[in-house]
Amino acid sequence: MERTLIGELGQKVGETVLIKGWVSVRRDQGKMVFFDFRDRSGTVQGVVLPNSEAIENAKETRNEYVVAVEGKVNERPEKNRNDKAQNGNIELEVLQLTVITKAESLPFDMSIDGYNLDLGTELDHRALTLRHPRLQAIFKVQAVIIDSFREYMKSQDFFEFQAPAIVPATAEGGAEVFKVQYFDKDAFLSQSPQLYKQIVMTAFERVFSVNKVFRAEPSSTTRHLTEIVSLDAEMAFIDSWKDVRDMSENTVRYILSEVAAKCGKELEVLGATLPAMIESTPTLSLTEALEKLGAGADKDLNPEQERRLCEMIKEETGSDFVYVYGYPTKHKPFYVYPNPESPEFNEGMDLLCRGVEWLSGGRRINDYAQLVDHVEKWGMDPKKIEMFLEAFRYGVPPEGGFAFGAERMTMQMLELKNIREATMFPRDMHRIDLLLSSDNQDDKDNPQQ
Amino acid sequence: MERTLIGELGQKVGETVLIKGWVSVRRDQGKMVFFDFRDRSGTVQGVVLPNSEAIENAKETRNEYVVAVEGKVNERPEKNRNDKAQNGNIELEVLQLTVITKAESLPFDMSIDGYNLDLGTELDHRALTLRHPRLQAIFKVQAVIIDSFREYMKSQDFFEFQAPAIVPATAEGGAEVFKVQYFDKDAFLSQSPQLYKQIVMTAFERVFSVNKVFRAEPSSTTRHLTEIVSLDAEMAFIDSWKDVRDMSENTVRYILSEVAAKCGKELEVLGATLPAMIESTPTLSLTEALEKLGAGADKDLNPEQERRLCEMIKEETGSDFVYVYGYPTKHKPFYVYPNPESPEFNEGMDLLCRGVEWLSGGRRINDYAQLVDHVEKWGMDPKKIEMFLEAFRYGVPPEGGFAFGAERMTMQMLELKNIREATMFPRDMHRIDLLLSSDNQDDKDNPQQ
Repeated sequence: MERTLIGELGQKVGETVLIKGWVSVRRDQGKMVFFDFRDRSGTVQGVVLPNSEAIENAKETRNEYVVAVEGKVNERPEKNRNDKAQNGNIELEVLQLTVITKAESLPFDMSIDGYNLDLGTELDHRALTLRHPRLQAIFKVQAVIIDSFREYMKSQDFFEFQAPAIVPATAEGGAEVFKVQYFDKDAFLSQSPQLYKQIVMTAFERVFSVNKVFRAEPSSTTRHLTEIVSLDAEMAFIDSWKDVRDMSENTVRYILSEVAAKCGKELEVLGATLPAMIESTPTLSLTEALEKLGAGADKDLNPEQERRLCEMIKEETGSDFVYVYGYPTKHKPFYVYPNPESPEFNEGMDLLCRGVEWLSGGRRINDYAQLVDHVEKWGMDPKKIEMFLEAFRYGVPPEGGFAFGAERMTMQMLELKNIREATMFPRDMHRIDLLLSSDNQDDKDNPQQ
Repeated sequence: MERTLIGELGQKVGETVLIKGWVSVRRDQGKMVFFDFRDRSGTVQGVVLPNSEAIENAKETRNEYVVAVEGKVNERPEKNRNDKAQNGNIELEVLQLTVITKAESLPFDMSIDGYNLDLGTELDHRALTLRHPRLQAIFKVQAVIIDSFREYMKSQDFFEFQAPAIVPATAEGGAEVFKVQYFDKDAFLSQSPQLYKQIVMTAFERVFSVNKVFRAEPSSTTRHLTEIVSLDAEMAFIDSWKDVRDMSENTVRYILSEVAAKCGKELEVLGATLPAMIESTPTLSLTEALEKLGAGADKDLNPEQERRLCEMIKEETGSDFVYVYGYPTKHKPFYVYPNPESPEFNEGMDLLCRGVEWLSGGRRINDYAQLVDHVEKWGMDPKKIEMFLEAFRYGVPPEGGFAFGAERMTMQMLELKNIREATMFPRDMHRIDLLLSSDNQDDKDNPQQ
């Protein structure tokens, strides 16, 4: 018999089917045994009646066993229905049950209601805990966020390119870069595809990338990882930084609408409410934002100010989002475009939501002479960004772009408490899969490595 | 006036439009000036008539200048038409020409026919050479390859996950792994998402990933890079390795059909012919393949044998593709499934095309006891793959998967001579963007790095 996916059982009432999947729950009630079976498409309740051929196997089956089950799809009696649950109106009367693969006893309760691990334990057992519906919901939402970014970019004629991870000596330097032993030389892990996306934009006009970036963050906050997925866009022929704001706003709007449309079940499992984006997102200059907060001039908002600004905007307009633009030029990277009318402020921007930054971007310098001037003023070595500078030597239109991290957006969209929950295999200064210790470091002196 | 994309000019005959783009070619014929203008959507010929207001600006405009052009879309006279070229039946009569951004003189001929750089120079100037239609064609095909892999996987209910790049001490070891200085510890760059995709498969049943992998190949062949894009799939509930073969065959078939459908123009620019995939791809065991070649038993085919086998199969069946399966178990990784009837051979497979390997995969061991037995026999430290082993401790169905490199497939589909042509920013032992030299290594002793 052909396998039927559990998600399709609703259309098979009265039929005998074969399902294959895992045992999520087994409730042995003496004469009868009840199961929750699970496959990639969902969950269904199974019942083994006392006279079923399957009763002996059912008694020996345990949680997480992989099974093949032949059974009849029955409507549940009215009183036993659960209209909110998947397959809540049917159950599978088990006729035959074959164990495909056994499982060892679980080290902790994996049931929907009984699951209650601290994050460290959850991560130590990621290979098992990924089977839990709550964790699956998080990563399904994340996949939709990334997919819908890609879809929206393609709908707007952006070209996807692959940004490199290994980079040469970085022009901007900084302590938070990982060093790679590259044959007899040193190389580094990319902190951002910024310069590459600008290069590729000069050839393809509108480009985007989905790729890993790396930060050697020597801290263990709830918001930082050493390896993240960066979603990046860059577009030429803009009239002003506002075109970049609009494109980024429409991108986030599309992502939110796709998550709402495709992840209703997941949002319910997670108890998450998506943030509200109104028709036109409030947009303030940094100066305006600081004034509104009653603060003096500053180079940026601090976390507390970001939180308060979001609250004020929410109260005034109903918007969970607010753009802040126009930061002091000298405190930002060399490529950010200074406002021609007041060059001490730039045309960079951040999108805040629920008190924290979701996305950054802005207009960049496209004029070669101005770029070279900035490289000099920022005290950088032009040799180290020769490939980047070459792109701008040969005619580049006004341009800008934006970027955001998939994990940060997942975390904040789902109101998770720790970014590690929004990362399948989180890396931080203490953990790569398992906690780092001398135990998994015994290759250290192996010259082969 | 709103900007019109050059690709849409064919529908605007008789209208006055505004285009924005680059000057690809300028031909000054004294009284008149001819241009080829380029934007992300294509190319069009422009003509500046002697009495045009634009004639002065046109005289001063050079290749790669960014311009805004107001002009009238005219049909070309019959004798000047070129039906094979984009916009070959129209030209833009330039009424106004505004220079948006100037360009320096080009360091070499970038015209379609005049472009003729050796690969080293092409790579040194990647930021500029990416503007050439031939290079753009390569990366457009590559984007379609990656996109259509993703599309096909999703159509088959595979879940996309993000595989990590930084990994702990690898269980399999090997000299070809890059070491990362990870705070006060060592970490490594992932050579393959193999173990991660198997872990995630145990939770999501069908998974795929598109991510970077890294090999410290101490060689400079035309087929190896240190950083590549790996396209990976893994699926549970297979009946045999043949399900994996079929899924991989259908994936490649879909990719080929998408490239054929979407990249006609690019294939023409590149002069490439796609390989032929017949209805059912010939499939031989390694033993059968060696016999066919008149060779004795061996652990693998050598490159010359791969080439000859492909020729023989092509001649006999018309297929450019051939699967070879059943390699000696002990010469392959610990997780490959041994054939139960003759355990000295495994159920791993390779897909060859035009003489070289395109894709590898096969069935994996899903039984925990068998896996532990292999880990031991292969002399590995189980502690180093504890997370992987945990996944298999708790019930995993029969499963398998496959993988291929985006650059290798691009190279071979387009019959390029060097894999560096199929990589936007190729990395090898001598090059990261530019050639590695002491010049870009002067951060080496900087304690900040």
